[in-house]
Amino acid sequence: MKELSFSVCGCGCRGTWLTDNVLTSLEDVTIVAVCDPYEDKAQDLADLIEKKGFARPQVFTEHEVMFDTVPTDAVLDATSWEAHVPVAVAAMRRGIAVAMEVGGAQSEEECRELIRVQTETGTPFMLMENCCYGKEELLATSLARNGKFGEIVYCQGAYAHDLRAEVAYGEKNRHYRIKHYSTRNGENYPTHEFGPIARLLHITRGNRMLKLSAFASKARGLHEYVQGREDLAHLKDFAFTQGDIVETLITCENGELIRIRLDTTLPRYYSREFTVRGTRGLYNQDANMVMIEGDGATEYFNTAETIKANINNADRYDDYLPAIWRDVDPEVLEKGHGGMDWFVFMAFVDALREGKPMPIDVYDATAWMCITYLSELSIKNGGTPVDVPDFTDGAWRDRAPVDVVEFPILNR
Amino acid sequence: MKELSFSVCGCGCRGTWLTDNVLTSLEDVTIVAVCDPYEDKAQDLADLIEKKGFARPQVFTEHEVMFDTVPTDAVLDATSWEAHVPVAVAAMRRGIAVAMEVGGAQSEEECRELIRVQTETGTPFMLMENCCYGKEELLATSLARNGKFGEIVYCQGAYAHDLRAEVAYGEKNRHYRIKHYSTRNGENYPTHEFGPIARLLHITRGNRMLKLSAFASKARGLHEYVQGREDLAHLKDFAFTQGDIVETLITCENGELIRIRLDTTLPRYYSREFTVRGTRGLYNQDANMVMIEGDGATEYFNTAETIKANINNADRYDDYLPAIWRDVDPEVLEKGHGGMDWFVFMAFVDALREGKPMPIDVYDATAWMCITYLSELSIKNGGTPVDVPDFTDGAWRDRAPVDVVEFPILNR
Repeated sequence: MKELSFSVCGCGCRGTWLTDNVLTSLEDVTIVAVCDPYEDKAQDLADLIEKKGFARPQVFTEHEVMFDTVPTDAVLDATSWEAHVPVAVAAMRRGIAVAMEVGGAQSEEECRELIRVQTETGTPFMLMENCCYGKEELLATSLARNGKFGEIVYCQGAYAHDLRAEVAYGEKNRHYRIKHYSTRNGENYPTHEFGPIARLLHITRGNRMLKLSAFASKARGLHEYVQGREDLAHLKDFAFTQGDIVETLITCENGELIRIRLDTTLPRYYSREFTVRGTRGLYNQDANMVMIEGDGATEYFNTAETIKANINNADRYDDYLPAIWRDVDPEVLEKGHGGMDWFVFMAFVDALREGKPMPIDVYDATAWMCITYLSELSIKNGGTPVDVPDFTDGAWRDRAPVDVVEFPILNR
Repeated sequence: MKELSFSVCGCGCRGTWLTDNVLTSLEDVTIVAVCDPYEDKAQDLADLIEKKGFARPQVFTEHEVMFDTVPTDAVLDATSWEAHVPVAVAAMRRGIAVAMEVGGAQSEEECRELIRVQTETGTPFMLMENCCYGKEELLATSLARNGKFGEIVYCQGAYAHDLRAEVAYGEKNRHYRIKHYSTRNGENYPTHEFGPIARLLHITRGNRMLKLSAFASKARGLHEYVQGREDLAHLKDFAFTQGDIVETLITCENGELIRIRLDTTLPRYYSREFTVRGTRGLYNQDANMVMIEGDGATEYFNTAETIKANINNADRYDDYLPAIWRDVDPEVLEKGHGGMDWFVFMAFVDALREGKPMPIDVYDATAWMCITYLSELSIKNGGTPVDVPDFTDGAWRDRAPVDVVEFPILNR
């Protein structure tokens, strides 16, 4: 196997976690350099790598200097949201393949630049959307590909994750999220739920988004959270700008409706709410529940009873899982978000080694990331629908509808 | 107790069901006349009343003739959606109190006329929104009134009910729904979920809606449903107009965001999805689940596990139920939609006898019903937000925030 050298750009929580749990476990992958504007964070990550028995990587605080000094095969771009694209662009210009972590786009120009530089240089690029490799998302997509849901007409998802502590203690922890929650108002983190939906609906690959509208509730969750916390007393009267709930509605060329929700500053349980609705059945991720006409799910008029009777019944459809999830190694399940982090990196490394097209390319990435700045614009204009740019310049009509994995097609 | 005479206008499924299960069980209520444009339906209802041991009511096919011939104390207006207001107006003009079944408004003028005639005549009027008396909706509202959720920022609901058979066989069964699904596209049935949300958020009573936007998926569910059904062969190539899923987003004066979904033509389980989100907790009707900070609900990163661990945990909060639901008579639970139909009629009859204000009045009714024609307009204009009329003419600022029942306030 071809040996691959990696650098890690961004040594915060995500970069550190991925290095610790994924990158250092990949065969024939060496981490030779790490970079963070906060030098102590970069040194900590170098320490961690050394402690695991590997050679100590070189440490940098400027990514361009790192790329010029240590030209690796690939970079893990796990920087702050606003640095994702500049770092990716700098790497691609030097022929360094980019594994870019997820987040939203700050502007249309950012999306256009990502595409311009990738297509001009031909450098391999992948958006590392781990949820595209989630067991539940892939099961539902496989059932859709097998025609079990009939014609798909609607999908829903959410990033529902109580991040109040992470945001409120952002200054203390030098985390970038608080800046966005203090100055902006939009769907700031769309790809975890939208990526799998977009792939299921063949967005940029035979289908495209037409219009987007977004709506925000008032912002009260963080305000309430900081009250009575002595170490956050300086935020007691601070006016956070980010609405607690943001709803985004997207209409598609092929007639489907998509709804996603950002939900990060109120108390709640974690959920992605991946939901697929077709003319013959549905998938509901909250209950991990499949209902297909004639397939014997139990229904009561009382909704909670229906859910109780069918929760996790998706397990009955295990035959439809893609190979990566059938007979999955239990060790993989420990490697970040229940295994997804592992699979998304395996896909990147495999495509890079084999010179295959990246499973999630710049057209996918920009289509998903643009939701952020478009949603801000729509909210600012009172929910006015905005046209979604076609970053493929019409190529969506002919791009092949490829999935991130191969699905078994049963009952041919 | 004062004896009350009722007429029943509209002898279809709903009118017949309510007569059989509720009206004929109410003490000191007599049904003296029934009316339906299809005479056989009216005769069938008269038969049913007679068979139950009551005097046979007079039978009519025109409501104005009935009102002029048999001027009852009250009428149950269980007609088709488009006849609700004309029948209510005709009754109110004659001083006949109106118990009007739910549905959407066809136009702004319809809403204005309802208000005009009610305020001019002073005739008692109530919208019979049974879900305002639902156990789950009232428990969540009580918890909100007790401050358990903190500040409320978001509510969600749905009318998620697979009505494909009812719609597709509408011609055969002389049911009016098919006409709407064949010619219109909007949130055609908003009040079951929106009524309880509006009351919780004090809409028309200290709060009001500002803007509404609506979005529809393509319409494929009914088309798929009629394929291969011989008795529906005439609809094989029919182009239904009503989108399978309609999402409606509403912003409020006090900063809350509301989302409702119409979901009636795809296979699914029944659900109203009443959801309340506040700065300190949430209610989720699908799982009948309460999560309040510090109140010991169990959370896992896996969503289905979280739901499994907490489903129906709302039962722990039974002390917050209003009197009608504490120690509820088991017989009542059999009286339509788990008891709601009974309670909404008890409320109407009680207010009528005692001369008290109706719990759900014309301002509530029009605020909730207008969603239908506003959503059609927004969908027609590609999701453009529409201003929601203030039918109270500014009185929303001073209308007292009264609930449909009294809630126990604990831990004062």
